[in-house]
Amino acid sequence: MKNEKIPYNIYLNEAEMPTAWYNLRADMKNKPAPLLNPATHLPVTENELSNIFCEELVKQELDCDTPYFEIPEEIRNFYKMYRPSPLVRAYCLEKKLDTPAHIYYKFEGNNTSGSHKLNSAIAQAYYAKKQGLKGVTTETGAGQWGTALSMACSYFDLECKVFMVKCSYEQKPFRREVMRTYGASVTPSPSTETEVGKKILKEHPGTTGSLGCAISEAVEKAVTSEGYRYVLGSVLNQVLLHQTVIGLETKTALDKYGIKPDIIIGCAGGGSNLGGLIAPFMGEKLRGEADYRFIAVEPASCPSLTRGVFAYDFCDTGKVCPLAKMYTLGCDFIPSANHAGGLRYHGMSSILSQLYHDGLMEAVSVAQTNVFDAAEQFARIEGILPAPESSHAIRVAIDEALKCKETGEEKTIVFGLTGTGYFDMVAYEKYHNKEMSDYIPTDDELKVYLDKLPSID
Amino acid sequence: MKNEKIPYNIYLNEAEMPTAWYNLRADMKNKPAPLLNPATHLPVTENELSNIFCEELVKQELDCDTPYFEIPEEIRNFYKMYRPSPLVRAYCLEKKLDTPAHIYYKFEGNNTSGSHKLNSAIAQAYYAKKQGLKGVTTETGAGQWGTALSMACSYFDLECKVFMVKCSYEQKPFRREVMRTYGASVTPSPSTETEVGKKILKEHPGTTGSLGCAISEAVEKAVTSEGYRYVLGSVLNQVLLHQTVIGLETKTALDKYGIKPDIIIGCAGGGSNLGGLIAPFMGEKLRGEADYRFIAVEPASCPSLTRGVFAYDFCDTGKVCPLAKMYTLGCDFIPSANHAGGLRYHGMSSILSQLYHDGLMEAVSVAQTNVFDAAEQFARIEGILPAPESSHAIRVAIDEALKCKETGEEKTIVFGLTGTGYFDMVAYEKYHNKEMSDYIPTDDELKVYLDKLPSID
Repeated sequence: MKNEKIPYNIYLNEAEMPTAWYNLRADMKNKPAPLLNPATHLPVTENELSNIFCEELVKQELDCDTPYFEIPEEIRNFYKMYRPSPLVRAYCLEKKLDTPAHIYYKFEGNNTSGSHKLNSAIAQAYYAKKQGLKGVTTETGAGQWGTALSMACSYFDLECKVFMVKCSYEQKPFRREVMRTYGASVTPSPSTETEVGKKILKEHPGTTGSLGCAISEAVEKAVTSEGYRYVLGSVLNQVLLHQTVIGLETKTALDKYGIKPDIIIGCAGGGSNLGGLIAPFMGEKLRGEADYRFIAVEPASCPSLTRGVFAYDFCDTGKVCPLAKMYTLGCDFIPSANHAGGLRYHGMSSILSQLYHDGLMEAVSVAQTNVFDAAEQFARIEGILPAPESSHAIRVAIDEALKCKETGEEKTIVFGLTGTGYFDMVAYEKYHNKEMSDYIPTDDELKVYLDKLPSID
Repeated sequence: MKNEKIPYNIYLNEAEMPTAWYNLRADMKNKPAPLLNPATHLPVTENELSNIFCEELVKQELDCDTPYFEIPEEIRNFYKMYRPSPLVRAYCLEKKLDTPAHIYYKFEGNNTSGSHKLNSAIAQAYYAKKQGLKGVTTETGAGQWGTALSMACSYFDLECKVFMVKCSYEQKPFRREVMRTYGASVTPSPSTETEVGKKILKEHPGTTGSLGCAISEAVEKAVTSEGYRYVLGSVLNQVLLHQTVIGLETKTALDKYGIKPDIIIGCAGGGSNLGGLIAPFMGEKLRGEADYRFIAVEPASCPSLTRGVFAYDFCDTGKVCPLAKMYTLGCDFIPSANHAGGLRYHGMSSILSQLYHDGLMEAVSVAQTNVFDAAEQFARIEGILPAPESSHAIRVAIDEALKCKETGEEKTIVFGLTGTGYFDMVAYEKYHNKEMSDYIPTDDELKVYLDKLPSID
């Protein structure tokens, strides 16, 4: 099909859909550093992790060598309900920008959870069911992950207990209702349901919570409840593994038309979407078969890659989880209250952190008003109302396309459009009313948290 | 492909997409009755209508003979951004219901407006632009149509002035923000911006507005503003014409696999989705080429087909619009305040009214708690969070599938899933909290409004 006109939406039929997830770690020379036991500082064992996570997921988490994991048939059947996700040629955006660049986006928002999170949620729910568990616990911030997990648990008839960061719980009652529609129980965090929650409430009365704190509560709840395990929506190796379905579909679709991207762009909070999108392309780069530029885009108000340090740190505020080596701002870091754009996690996937450290990927940070400028422009031209998170990638894709306009280069740009913004209209309203401001933390402000990193060689 | 396994999503490629809208009226023996001038009670002329509507749209409105109208290339290009919409085989629902029936749904919610309304909005905006207009006015209730029109106007760089029913404006600030994201101006109705609005406010101080009232304001604004015309999202013949893209895609997809539906089900407010979905199938029935059962589903609290009368009535509260012959509850009828399920218009498309009157289509009404039962069940099984409107069709599709379970019949059921419920979480919350009740108007209550119908032979 190489000489055909590229359609607006490059579609894959069922036979072309991926049947295995790709384990990028198998092709990495420098493997991501292992998780450490928070008490002993020794690499966590399969046994230790199995108290927290499902057995099959522990295997996936620790396996740095097996290149492919077959996607179980039940998960492939679920994927068929909303995948392949559209790979769209942004003809209208190209025309409006008057750029010679070719722009494509992989749109993961066409499912009720509204984001790519469902790709891993359904996998994690499947393995929990397979292990005969009663239910799972998790945390959610903006609510995308909690929604996705609620849907997945409903499908497999599993109980789902969500700790939702308190400020989101109060500001986003509709997200909460979507989760309830899928039968999940939703608790604002910090809560009095856990010891760690009580402790945090005692130390910080009136706190509106954080992702790191909700993680601590969800983990405690899982390990103290019969037949429960904890699941997480980003950061972990297993999550990036499941999310490779995004990149694999993208690559298959582009290959059908002989399209080779020059630049691949994704927003990065914990790294699940970016890691999944770039994986098969990065694999080619690691094996010396092709070269691509990869750009991680993060908020200027939560700049873990661009201003954090590469070190072992706690994944959660309560310090009950294993330690991960990653780019981090410190586990107590919380973005400024005026930050509306998501991507709030203090750390970054160990896989992506290692790749960035090894110079295989670039990273940039962007201010939120610039992000919302891009979001509104994109909505008006391409029709889709993007999530603020996704709009970080849009911002940089537009910037790169405008550079092509200056240089006259006909580059091919692919970016991940991770989700929709239907539940983010409070932020859009602030933007419309010119009540949105940018906040970039000073070096001194960041130092407060970075100084508290655990010292581990 | 007749013997292949039916995929979850029957996809059409660009070459298979419709290139013309189908004008069902051309195949109707009994044509829908003409619109009447509200002053003279004579059929409105092309000239008279051209003060309100764009010229090309007036032609489409009045033409009962031309079987096909070519879809202009610009509109087809826009359609490509979000069409073909998925035609999904509801395997999971079938399994859960344990029914021998085969269930398909045509899902129109996969675009930012969240519903099928965009299909006509983009057409109406295109003709307005082509005529060199500056902008358009319209009304919106729940906000789906206003959102769709805002998107369409943004695409063609037209001004868009939306009168939003006041109670929705206040209860759905996020819908308003989506419209603002697309550059529309949104005014709560009734307002002091129009004479009719002022009059209604004077007669009914404290009113929270109605669709009929917002229509009056939008029409007045259009005819009194230089370079403006009025556009409407349902009821009109032109709107049903544009919406046939739904049915044409559905039929092409089913034909590819040799599937012949037994029952086609759609929710019905003004009739735009139902009319569009059934059109090509109804055409076959009218021409004697095939037979199908068609079922219109309406709310028990706004039962125009099942409990209204077939008569000439005003389309708007202010009585400034032409009169239409239709099933109506009277132009002052407003559904009970506890009604949360949309489909609130007092009348029904003249085309559908005529077909129903001639016994070519069935109609049923359903109570809203039953509708939300179906909505939640569907969300949990098929993943998609449906709009309350769409859930009327889900309710009856499930009921028909359960009848098949009893009889053992392997019927093929197709229903229209018109949109998503992201902006309806207040209603879902009421449902979850068991605060939702059913209200079915008594005959005496309906009589109050029916007695006021204009008497026209």
